[in-house]
Amino acid sequence: MLGNCLENVRKSMPLVHNITNYVTVNDVANAILACGGSPIMSDEPDDVADITSICGGLNINIGTLNKRTIEAMWISGARSKELGHPVLLDPVGAGASALRTNTAVKIMEKIKPDVIRGNISEIKTLALGSGTTKGVDADAADTVTEDNLEAMISFAKNFAAKSGAVVAITGAIDLVADAETCYVIRNGRPEMSRITGTGCQLSGITATYITANPDHKTEAVAAAVCMMGLAGEIGVANMAENEGNSSLRNRIIDAIYNMDAETLDHGAKYEVR
Amino acid sequence: MLGNCLENVRKSMPLVHNITNYVTVNDVANAILACGGSPIMSDEPDDVADITSICGGLNINIGTLNKRTIEAMWISGARSKELGHPVLLDPVGAGASALRTNTAVKIMEKIKPDVIRGNISEIKTLALGSGTTKGVDADAADTVTEDNLEAMISFAKNFAAKSGAVVAITGAIDLVADAETCYVIRNGRPEMSRITGTGCQLSGITATYITANPDHKTEAVAAAVCMMGLAGEIGVANMAENEGNSSLRNRIIDAIYNMDAETLDHGAKYEVR
Amino acid sequence: MLGNCLENVRKSMPLVHNITNYVTVNDVANAILACGGSPIMSDEPDDVADITSICGGLNINIGTLNKRTIEAMWISGARSKELGHPVLLDPVGAGASALRTNTAVKIMEKIKPDVIRGNISEIKTLALGSGTTKGVDADAADTVTEDNLEAMISFAKNFAAKSGAVVAITGAIDLVADAETCYVIRNGRPEMSRITGTGCQLSGITATYITANPDHKTEAVAAAVCMMGLAGEIGVANMAENEGNSSLRNRIIDAIYNMDAETLDHGAKYEVR
Repeated sequence: MLGNCLENVRKSMPLVHNITNYVTVNDVANAILACGGSPIMSDEPDDVADITSICGGLNINIGTLNKRTIEAMWISGARSKELGHPVLLDPVGAGASALRTNTAVKIMEKIKPDVIRGNISEIKTLALGSGTTKGVDADAADTVTEDNLEAMISFAKNFAAKSGAVVAITGAIDLVADAETCYVIRNGRPEMSRITGTGCQLSGITATYITANPDHKTEAVAAAVCMMGLAGEIGVANMAENEGNSSLRNRIIDAIYNMDAETLDHGAKYEVR
Repeated sequence: MLGNCLENVRKSMPLVHNITNYVTVNDVANAILACGGSPIMSDEPDDVADITSICGGLNINIGTLNKRTIEAMWISGARSKELGHPVLLDPVGAGASALRTNTAVKIMEKIKPDVIRGNISEIKTLALGSGTTKGVDADAADTVTEDNLEAMISFAKNFAAKSGAVVAITGAIDLVADAETCYVIRNGRPEMSRITGTGCQLSGITATYITANPDHKTEAVAAAVCMMGLAGEIGVANMAENEGNSSLRNRIIDAIYNMDAETLDHGAKYEVR
Repeated sequence: MLGNCLENVRKSMPLVHNITNYVTVNDVANAILACGGSPIMSDEPDDVADITSICGGLNINIGTLNKRTIEAMWISGARSKELGHPVLLDPVGAGASALRTNTAVKIMEKIKPDVIRGNISEIKTLALGSGTTKGVDADAADTVTEDNLEAMISFAKNFAAKSGAVVAITGAIDLVADAETCYVIRNGRPEMSRITGTGCQLSGITATYITANPDHKTEAVAAAVCMMGLAGEIGVANMAENEGNSSLRNRIIDAIYNMDAETLDHGAKYEVR
């Protein structure tokens, strides 16, 4: 049951090292705290090996990457692998610039992250070496729909097999796949795309979940994705008159804070294919 | 009508590249999303030419500038000009340090931004090569008032003529001027100065507006300034008991999210001089 | 009376230079604005001497330190001392990495900050050259409790005497000590540890308080610590149904915004030992 994955986070309170963008970092930290983890941020090459070493997992988000933070990603990625810590890669904007594409592809190939989470444009860029990324948002032409679902499930499984990672492709329909299994998840709300960083938050949360659930990573990723989508549904339901995207941001993190295993198990909408 | 400018943003959903400070960047992103644009942040010299190229406009904010981000500003500014993209300069803290003053003056002279938006101290620093900037807030001695309004309108038009930019001077009374026309805007609330980054948000929004309204930039800037001020009025009106500046920050962005053309046209308080 | 310290902040509106981490910087800025100060952030070595010079106080927070910002800390620290400005050090994560420990110890020894504020693990690292810092949060084994209170008060006074700084150790029980006097403060709520950056906010506020109250720094630090804890109590009391850590973050800053001297004097729970 997915709720168990949340309970494991709450019990073990995993410490997660985040090398992430400065746009959404505060929300990432509060989202990790909300679900029961403990975030620490550090991106200085001279600092990160020590920080990675005291943590249990690593979240690499290339959102506002620069030469210094890329160097830190390599050091922390390598150290995590030495220590057997799970690593998540969020290839923000892969396909939108050569630096982002190349950095994400190299991290995928050399660090071999345990989970790769992105929108369909970013994941296609990693999988196919191309894509039509429009900024940091997915291109409409790439979207997972009921019509192309079968093909997208195969794509996700194949990419998972090839990369060795659990692959989470998030959008209106979310897919979480390893080589054999694909969770098709229908939680979430379109309003979430009008808030900056819901994807980054999900990556931080997912890194926390896999750190607390090392022995069943695919299920843990699916639990994190369902929880984020469900929190979006609850957040929208709780919106008061005159509220908009800024208040919704708070209400989603609040919903994660108040989430329990039972709520998650009842609210999760997924099928396993 | 100013409302048309907002509708053009909502229809075209322009992608805007922001090189901005890390203090208020999250609110800038959410404010751009709230008004209907799509923000992307990147400040690594090796990344920014690609990012600028996929965007429609550029917002340069020097709030927490450093050597790396200044280099990125130059690259993106030049690339924007090559591509004919509109560029906005927010000279945060010009007058407060030599680096800020010199950087802002050089960007003004070499990049020739389409819009310059700042408080009166920052704009005077750019216009006159001096000023009495007190940190990142305007000095009281410089303020635009009903008493000096005539002179300030002339100052704004002259600076617009000299710089070739639409000039937005924001404060208790806002002025938006090109060489011939000046919008005198009386929207807004004093409480907005107790929230960090309402000026930065306005710059991000204004960059979004001029990207979506390339053929009538002065009006587009006036529309953005009126909308921000009106959102401040709505935000304050919506405040519940015990709320303060942090909740007001959310309520203002929420008001932008819920703004429509009719509300903007009815609520905008301006005269054209 | 502690309320006077708040009134002095509100009257003098001190300008405070912050070199602080990018995770919680927006909340630090809004918290300083909420209590009546005016924040400016700058961390570029070529910028900071000018910015420090126009400010009245300096807040150094090593939360996401890097080589560039460390250089800025040295420049601003030295300039503050030349100008007689008060300096606060927040040794975020001291004990968690060699870079953090060494940087914090060196700043303590060379800059001689007026106030050092951290959790018990960080302070023990500075005082004893060791500690059991678990990430950026205090280790449970180190906590100040009613049982070890006498010993911890002595520890705080001794470290204050040795370092020459007012020492603020914050946790379930807060201690604010100089060589002779220790405020034992019992304001605050456990929920505050589920929000990122309440400690960073307190450091920014404390730097603001000592800038506005240069002649009675220990009392000013105690006033800041009581106010933050009381704001946490008020924030939790004001929470509505379905709210969690993200809304609480706003409610705490709102409570600071609405705090007056009388509320602070009535709500402060402390004894002087």
